[in-house]
Amino acid sequence: NIQRWIIMFLIGVSTACVAALIDVGINAISSVKYLCYFQDCLAQPYLIWLALSISLVFIAAALVVYLEPVAIGSGIPQIKCFLNGVNIQRCVRLKTLVAKAVGVLFSVAGGLPVGKEGPMIHSGAALAAAISNGKVTIGKCSFNIFHYFRSPVEKRDFVSAGAAAGVSAAFGSPVGGVLFSLEEGASFWYQSITWRIFFASMTSTFTLNVIRSFIHGMPFNLSFPGLLDFGDFKKGVTYYGYELPIFFLMGIVGGLLGALFNYINYKLSLHRMRNIRKSYLKLLEAIVVIIVCTAAAFLAVSLNQGCQPKYEAIQSELETFNFTSFKCGNGDYNTMATLFLNTPEKAIKNMFHTPQGLYTIPTLIWFTVIFFFTACWTYGVNVPSGLFVPCILTGAAWGRILGELINLIPGQEWSSPGRYALMGAAAMLAGVVRMTISITVILVEAIGDIAFGLPLMVVILISKLVGDYFNEGLYDIHVQLMKVPLLPWEPPDLSGSLTVKDLTCESVITLRKTERVADIYTVIKDADLRHNGYPVVDDDGTAATANNTNVKGRLIGLILLSELKTILELQLYKSNHPLKDYRLNGKDFDTFKHFYSKHDDFSCEIPPEDMNKTIDLTKFMNPSPYTVYENMSFPRLYRLFRGLGLRHIVVINSKNQVIGIITRVDLARYRHSQAGGKVIMEKLAIV
Amino acid sequence: NIQRWIIMFLIGVSTACVAALIDVGINAISSVKYLCYFQDCLAQPYLIWLALSISLVFIAAALVVYLEPVAIGSGIPQIKCFLNGVNIQRCVRLKTLVAKAVGVLFSVAGGLPVGKEGPMIHSGAALAAAISNGKVTIGKCSFNIFHYFRSPVEKRDFVSAGAAAGVSAAFGSPVGGVLFSLEEGASFWYQSITWRIFFASMTSTFTLNVIRSFIHGMPFNLSFPGLLDFGDFKKGVTYYGYELPIFFLMGIVGGLLGALFNYINYKLSLHRMRNIRKSYLKLLEAIVVIIVCTAAAFLAVSLNQGCQPKYEAIQSELETFNFTSFKCGNGDYNTMATLFLNTPEKAIKNMFHTPQGLYTIPTLIWFTVIFFFTACWTYGVNVPSGLFVPCILTGAAWGRILGELINLIPGQEWSSPGRYALMGAAAMLAGVVRMTISITVILVEAIGDIAFGLPLMVVILISKLVGDYFNEGLYDIHVQLMKVPLLPWEPPDLSGSLTVKDLTCESVITLRKTERVADIYTVIKDADLRHNGYPVVDDDGTAATANNTNVKGRLIGLILLSELKTILELQLYKSNHPLKDYRLNGKDFDTFKHFYSKHDDFSCEIPPEDMNKTIDLTKFMNPSPYTVYENMSFPRLYRLFRGLGLRHIVVINSKNQVIGIITRVDLARYRHSQAGGKVIMEKLAIV
Repeated sequence: NIQRWIIMFLIGVSTACVAALIDVGINAISSVKYLCYFQDCLAQPYLIWLALSISLVFIAAALVVYLEPVAIGSGIPQIKCFLNGVNIQRCVRLKTLVAKAVGVLFSVAGGLPVGKEGPMIHSGAALAAAISNGKVTIGKCSFNIFHYFRSPVEKRDFVSAGAAAGVSAAFGSPVGGVLFSLEEGASFWYQSITWRIFFASMTSTFTLNVIRSFIHGMPFNLSFPGLLDFGDFKKGVTYYGYELPIFFLMGIVGGLLGALFNYINYKLSLHRMRNIRKSYLKLLEAIVVIIVCTAAAFLAVSLNQGCQPKYEAIQSELETFNFTSFKCGNGDYNTMATLFLNTPEKAIKNMFHTPQGLYTIPTLIWFTVIFFFTACWTYGVNVPSGLFVPCILTGAAWGRILGELINLIPGQEWSSPGRYALMGAAAMLAGVVRMTISITVILVEAIGDIAFGLPLMVVILISKLVGDYFNEGLYDIHVQLMKVPLLPWEPPDLSGSLTVKDLTCESVITLRKTERVADIYTVIKDADLRHNGYPVVDDDGTAATANNTNVKGRLIGLILLSELKTILELQLYKSNHPLKDYRLNGKDFDTFKHFYSKHDDFSCEIPPEDMNKTIDLTKFMNPSPYTVYENMSFPRLYRLFRGLGLRHIVVINSKNQVIGIITRVDLARYRHSQAGGKVIMEKLAIV
Repeated sequence: NIQRWIIMFLIGVSTACVAALIDVGINAISSVKYLCYFQDCLAQPYLIWLALSISLVFIAAALVVYLEPVAIGSGIPQIKCFLNGVNIQRCVRLKTLVAKAVGVLFSVAGGLPVGKEGPMIHSGAALAAAISNGKVTIGKCSFNIFHYFRSPVEKRDFVSAGAAAGVSAAFGSPVGGVLFSLEEGASFWYQSITWRIFFASMTSTFTLNVIRSFIHGMPFNLSFPGLLDFGDFKKGVTYYGYELPIFFLMGIVGGLLGALFNYINYKLSLHRMRNIRKSYLKLLEAIVVIIVCTAAAFLAVSLNQGCQPKYEAIQSELETFNFTSFKCGNGDYNTMATLFLNTPEKAIKNMFHTPQGLYTIPTLIWFTVIFFFTACWTYGVNVPSGLFVPCILTGAAWGRILGELINLIPGQEWSSPGRYALMGAAAMLAGVVRMTISITVILVEAIGDIAFGLPLMVVILISKLVGDYFNEGLYDIHVQLMKVPLLPWEPPDLSGSLTVKDLTCESVITLRKTERVADIYTVIKDADLRHNGYPVVDDDGTAATANNTNVKGRLIGLILLSELKTILELQLYKSNHPLKDYRLNGKDFDTFKHFYSKHDDFSCEIPPEDMNKTIDLTKFMNPSPYTVYENMSFPRLYRLFRGLGLRHIVVINSKNQVIGIITRVDLARYRHSQAGGKVIMEKLAIV
């Protein structure tokens, strides 16, 4: 138990370190890249700038395409699947971590409209998996430190903690991190696990805080919580009660724009899956995207009349916001350049905190439109790319437009464009990702002012409701595109009419109480016959590999594929094997478990003379598996799977005879899709 | 679905209103009561003061003893049981709400060392139950507004929301409220429910904010979130990293003191249950407690040399803290009086924010000792009494002692007694109630500074771990004393050796597919034969009321007691009854459900000529109940109950024959108790 806490601590610390490295890396590259921009030398060597961006993005894309394809995108859909119990291949490997962490550094610094937050969350999850695995391999020696924590359930808990630590590091939001893990992943609320996740999350914030206090030259002054700094909103009045209807409307706008974003991205992703399949095409697309993004930004900056006169009074303040007079005469500020030629974090801060009237409405409209479409295009390109920052930035831009418009109303005194930018950001974010309580808490923690909780909640709720009318959240869309058997929170609507019988896998293989080694070997070897668990029946009429789909014998237990493999591998069928009666002894069981957790693939050859030996499976099987009757309704079955985190369940009839087996995939096949307010339940062909 | 949101809104608003009323009431009574104290006229008429306190507490105690005994204490143990699925009689009735809300007003104003927070949470839960019940009775007419939400599960969700809204109102902590509900109650994390709970919670904070902005004369200035105001901690440095070891030690102290508090309170409660059973004794005890508390406070105030010279520099600040020169000459301040003769909320604020050295160490020691023991004695007396405030106040006092001691170390510059008071408060609270993530978040939200999250978490974690070594949390102790079948989060340790067979209730009554009315009638009428659900078997050998405990017939379904009652009441056995085949039609099923949800007791007489009629139960039963095999291990069964929120499950053997039935009570009987680091599993005799 102490070990678990230590692991949580390590997860928190290491996630914070990786996050800090990513941040420092981005800042270092950006400072080199934007150096020229501050010195106003950029106008001529546009091509140099472009070349720099292209090469950075090229590195990011190459890492994804050639090193680890699963490092694409934000990683949240992958983590979501993993926490749901679906094993995405190589999703939490160290190689993925490297590709992701290094890749995001280059894709953000390269100037793509992407954020680093999603990849940080993915990195945290991958780190957690690596640490909890507890295998340190130095050269040819490998040391097992925490060999206890390799069961899928334990691993999932640690990965939850890693994701939470990632959120916590990215936004300085430990509570938001926990809620994120719960909202996206957990089926259960276990008190002890939640508390450990919270610990990892807090450790991560704290570590990052300490690291950043050193970076800022004020050791142990712990006032640098998150990496996405929203600045201090505490200056004026929080908001007025009568602004709530406006926020309400902003929620609707956010929902509509979010739905549009998701629709376009969905269509693009489909197109991408069909046409961009070769590696060089994937690389090429990333390069085309960065060229278009850079060109659009430069055109906007150069052509738009975004120049504003200098405000002497707020000079010092503006300098902290990285204002520049790029391409504007008279020492005026080029406001467009402040948005486009800046790191996204700084642009967000500008939106939230610069004074009224600094950005003209045309500037903001241009920015919104360009950023909306480039961000939409970028998500899904083969680079590590977070979705939070582009959404926040787009939302902040149109929110600020509204703020500036309200300011035109004569006689009002309550408008504050920064406030509206914040609400717009929340609306847009909720409209795209459709998370609820976790993004509310993340935003509240990131701005550090609890008083914004209510308006943020209103905006996010409305935006989600409006968006849900049209389509699903972008993460869910990408999960669907990945075709993994994810079980959502609730059974699909209209599924009440289905019963277990409709779902049951017809070709279930059952094993007999005393089974021949040859038959077990066939079952393991033949991929067609393979599922994860096999019912053991008390009937001699049906052979193990029989193809008859009729009613099988009476169920007496369930044995897992991994257990069968171990039985053959350890040759437990030999009558004198010491582990043969392992169930009698707890220690032997540990040995047995230890063995079977190791095997991913089976490469054991059975001597021909052993093939006809038999083994009594009752000693190894689970004698009381979960079962359901064939006439149970789908929603009840669904709750059973979801609530207990099952992967398969045996279906029996009223005589306790095996009818079949239902796996997670069978359930996940049924989805309801919502289009134009109508709910349709569909059965996916392949999952 | 919209209805659910409306109910959540109403729950939030009404909870906030009740909370505001309690607060206003306490302040109104206190201002009258303390009027004299400010005018320094109190010294002589000590008896008048005492009489006033006694009469206030008398009212509070009378409300509990004569009106509604379940309104005793904080109400959190009761809510915890309710959310766990155990029905505490009258726990969420309107009468209870009245007794609780009015009672706590008098018990706090009467000067008992109690808080108003727990009762506010209970009030929120009771309001939620009342609103979701949706029955408005005016005179003799009753209107059903929300008749859909009377299923136990739905009701539980709404009560969760009410409890969250209560926390939210009490502490201004909407996220803390949600986490409180989850930590104390929920088995599941359902996304949609959590989001609704959050909505209720936010609505509550917002409503209270608006109400309080009007009370403070600044309409719609939304900066008055919670009723327990901890003041602004933002002034100086949050804390230094090297203070963490000190906080760690404070956690240990908090855990030890909390365990002591719980031990003493447990022994007192046992004594109380044995000896104080008559109503007049209960009243008398409450009066003795208030006399002792008042006397102790007056003695401390009068005898202790707590007088401190006036600080001119901070005069104005001190006045906001309600300082007085009671009994001190030269216009000095009587610091002891500031703590004892003040509302607990103001005393807490004084502890947290008054400058270094204001309270002398002896003053603080006296206060800690007196408050610790009186608070410990008071919890369990027959008045509504919250536990949070006494714990916070006691902890703040000893925390501040530490702060003042550290200040004596020459050369240090980092001590701040308020910070240590806060940490002490957190440690003490965690040591007594043993909640974790929710109190961390509640405290962080109440002080409004996220940066305290980490040290608070460290303190709370250590305190809980230390306390858990000795005994359970005080709420859990009281749940045990109430002898209710509460299922904790995890199966008891050492339960792995038990199987389902060991638990199975031996005298299960089964019904036949086609059953005689007379037999059904006997089952309903005879309390000994009654459980909540009856297996329906496909076997004619065993009669319904047979006493043989042997193996029954093959299970084909499960029928609930309430369904049986409805069948007899509606005389569905008559062959021409229109509802006889109700399952064919959804609307009929609603009618049926509507009927059976109404009956708490059964008072229907069957005409003798109907007694021999039979009815086919297969039309009414649940044809696919959850089942387990007799040899399933206890922890697996436990997870099934906890995960699916079951109340009973049918046990079958491998031939699908009914062996027995297991109810929640059978599971809850097994508890593990921890004493001195040893874990023992015990089987409670009566539950």
